[in-house]
Amino acid sequence: MPATIYSGVFPIAPTPFAVSGDLDLDGQRRVLDCMIDRGVDGICILANYSEQFLLSDDERNTLLDLCLAHVAGRVPAIVTISHFSTRIAVARAKRAKATGAKMLMMMPPYHGASLRAVEGAILEYFKAVAEAARIPIIVQDAPLSGTSLSVPFLAQLAREVPLVAYFKIEVAGTASKLRALIEAGGRAIAGPFDGEESITLMADLDAGATGTMPSAMFPNLINPVVQLHRAGKRSEAADAFAHILPLINYENRQCGLQGTKIVMAKGGVIKSDAVRHTLAPCIPRPGSGCWSCAGN
Amino acid sequence: MPATIYSGVFPIAPTPFAVSGDLDLDGQRRVLDCMIDRGVDGICILANYSEQFLLSDDERNTLLDLCLAHVAGRVPAIVTISHFSTRIAVARAKRAKATGAKMLMMMPPYHGASLRAVEGAILEYFKAVAEAARIPIIVQDAPLSGTSLSVPFLAQLAREVPLVAYFKIEVAGTASKLRALIEAGGRAIAGPFDGEESITLMADLDAGATGTMPSAMFPNLINPVVQLHRAGKRSEAADAFAHILPLINYENRQCGLQGTKIVMAKGGVIKSDAVRHTLAPCIPRPGSGCWSCAGN
Repeated sequence: MPATIYSGVFPIAPTPFAVSGDLDLDGQRRVLDCMIDRGVDGICILANYSEQFLLSDDERNTLLDLCLAHVAGRVPAIVTISHFSTRIAVARAKRAKATGAKMLMMMPPYHGASLRAVEGAILEYFKAVAEAARIPIIVQDAPLSGTSLSVPFLAQLAREVPLVAYFKIEVAGTASKLRALIEAGGRAIAGPFDGEESITLMADLDAGATGTMPSAMFPNLINPVVQLHRAGKRSEAADAFAHILPLINYENRQCGLQGTKIVMAKGGVIKSDAVRHTLAPCIPRPGSGCWSCAGN
Repeated sequence: MPATIYSGVFPIAPTPFAVSGDLDLDGQRRVLDCMIDRGVDGICILANYSEQFLLSDDERNTLLDLCLAHVAGRVPAIVTISHFSTRIAVARAKRAKATGAKMLMMMPPYHGASLRAVEGAILEYFKAVAEAARIPIIVQDAPLSGTSLSVPFLAQLAREVPLVAYFKIEVAGTASKLRALIEAGGRAIAGPFDGEESITLMADLDAGATGTMPSAMFPNLINPVVQLHRAGKRSEAADAFAHILPLINYENRQCGLQGTKIVMAKGGVIKSDAVRHTLAPCIPRPGSGCWSCAGN
């Protein structure tokens, strides 16, 4: 069990781009400041909602250095390092640790529609990263990996690799899976989290979640749900959740990762809500087939 | 229609690794020499059978430079440049062209189990690369991308982006798809190829394929099938194919990309048949759970 237990709201920082597709590094700094101003408990970078799958390795390093230097310990930073190659995940993990990351986020290895790793190799993958970086790891259990991670396997992973102590569950039936994982893993589970824009937050808190990893759209409105629930004020927590659910629902089902960018661009935090081509913008603009690829 | 029409056997070069997981650059040179000695019509590098999904960007560049310098125009080189980001695919394409590539191979953009691009964005993606690199492109139509590319869409792509003139079809029903594509695309289809270790080669040649992209296991045995068929000696071509089909079948269904490595290691071309963790070796060795991750 790690000395510090992280809990609360750990949103994902979006990666802002200029309309040209260039990284907007000034915007990235403002994104982080905005998130800290909104009272987040920590920040996760280079996740899928950061469009990590649209970045080169050099850009990942640029963003890692910039974000960790700019956060400067004001809140703990989680860095996503997944790669199909264990060796490359290990190299990314060492770099993240050296740059000041407090935790690593990892999906199981995957590539495309069908390349997956067997459970033995997944376990070796997490073990190699844990041994190299010596900081806690949060497993991201999401459909994008195309890998079904059973509760017994996740509990085994937590027992055999003690730094694998956090679990961000965002699958169909997250609340039930969190409940089963807490039961199966016991003290090895330092942080059962949910994800997916916090769209199932109330059920997940009821199931025992101690943290959530939403987008960075409005962590200041998600935080009271977690705080009230933690204080035993379940009814007030449910009211606070019901108040924000329409927007979370719209984000989760209509916008995807661009939702936060649209809000931050409207609010003047970033200059453009552009996502990188070939990712589809959430609201295609009529008669502008080129809008989505302006950032080629 | 491009000035030079490529046809014949264009195998994929494997990327050899030491047992430690390091790139084996001397082995890479011997792999290329071996392929050229076996009479290939061209060589494709950085494909999925080259374990491209297990490489860092720096390693891709190292291999690109080394392979193109070592092939040195002895045969045409095809370089795979797929990336979910159009901008990164364009950068890779420009670099490949500048290094001497004669053709680019591209899958449609994909990430993980579910991130896919719409047809409009796929078309823009190929167009942006063609305009930037000005060399022919071969579309890789394979299940790994999780993207269904219809014959009308592929024909549209060939018409609207004339450099997209080659098509490597390796899906269920490849022969039928090649036949339909040749019918729909007409002169815009400069090179209908198959792939998938040439396991459906006879049917695909009958359907009009003019090239094949197998592994590098035995291009010298695949070449006669293509040559005999081209010369109108279909029966002899079928005999030559039947002779090698048991090994192709074993490779396709049991070995995957490691098959070529095992043969090349046995033959002294490379030192080790290792694949990079987390990829599973094709034949797990009893009692050695660590064999597969020796290259962590």
